Amino acid sequence: MRALILIAHGSKVIASNDEIRELTDNLREKARASSHEAMPSSFYDIILCGFLELAEPSIPGAIDKAVTAGSKHITIFPYFLSSGRHVAKDIPELVKERQLLYSDIPIEIAPYVGKMPKMIEYILKHLQDSKKA
Amino acid sequence: MRALILIAHGSKVIASNDEIRELTDNLREKARASSHEAMPSSFYDIILCGFLELAEPSIPGAIDKAVTAGSKHITIFPYFLSSGRHVAKDIPELVKERQLLYSDIPIEIAPYVGKMPKMIEYILKHLQDSKKA
Repeated sequence: MRALILIAHGSKVIASNDEIRELTDNLREKARASSHEAMPSSFYDIILCGFLELAEPSIPGAIDKAVTAGSKHITIFPYFLSSGRHVAKDIPELVKERQLLYSDIPIEIAPYVGKMPKMIEYILKHLQDSKKA
Repeated sequence: MRALILIAHGSKVIASNDEIRELTDNLREKARASSHEAMPSSFYDIILCGFLELAEPSIPGAIDKAVTAGSKHITIFPYFLSSGRHVAKDIPELVKERQLLYSDIPIEIAPYVGKMPKMIEYILKHLQDSKKA
C-alpha cells in the first residue's frame, strides 16, 4: 500500500483550498484509471492532500490518515512552484517528525511541482492553447 | 511587439526569486528557439518576470519595462497554482491600473499555471520519472 500526499500551502480563501482538494480527487481518479493501462503497479493506492497552514488536514494529520489507511510507503509531493522556506525547511521538518513516529514506514519527499523538468514546455503550450481558445 | 510577463508571488528567500528569474530566462530562450520551428509568429518578442511583492520588478514596474521596450500587446501570466486572492483580485487590480495608463496597449491576463488542463497528467508523469531517477 503506497500513499501519495500532495502538499499545498493552504489559503484563507476556501475556494482555493477546495481547488486543491478537487485536484487531489482528479489525481486519484486519473491514477486509478491509469493503473489499468500501462502504468507501473508500484503506483499509489491512496492519494490525499495536506496543507502547510490555514486548512485541514495538516501535514502531520494527512500522514496519520495515510498510515491509518494502511500505507507502508508514503510519498510527499510539495505542490509549490519555487523552493522557498516552505519547501526547503518547513515541509521537511514536519515530515521528519512524523518519520520518527512511524520509523518502519518510509516517507520520501518528491521534487516539488515547479521542478518538473518540462515546465518550460508545458508553460509555452499552455499559453499557446489559451491564446487559441 | 508582443510581451509576456510571468508574475510570481515573490519571496523573502532570494534564491526563490532567482529561481523565477532563471525560469523566465529559460522560457525566453525556449520561446526564441521555438520561433524558428513550428511555433506561430504571434509568439513573444519580450519575456520578463514581475513580482507581486517582496522582489523587483513589481507588476507595474514590469509592465512599464515592457512598454518602454516597445510592446504593443502584453500578456500577463500568473505563475500561481491556485486561484486565491492574489490571482482573483490583487493581480487584476494592478493590471487594470496600468491598463488605464496605457490605454492603447492591450494587456490580457492568461489563465494561471495551476489551470493548465493537463496538470494532472504532468504531475503523474513527474512523479513516475522522479521515482525512476
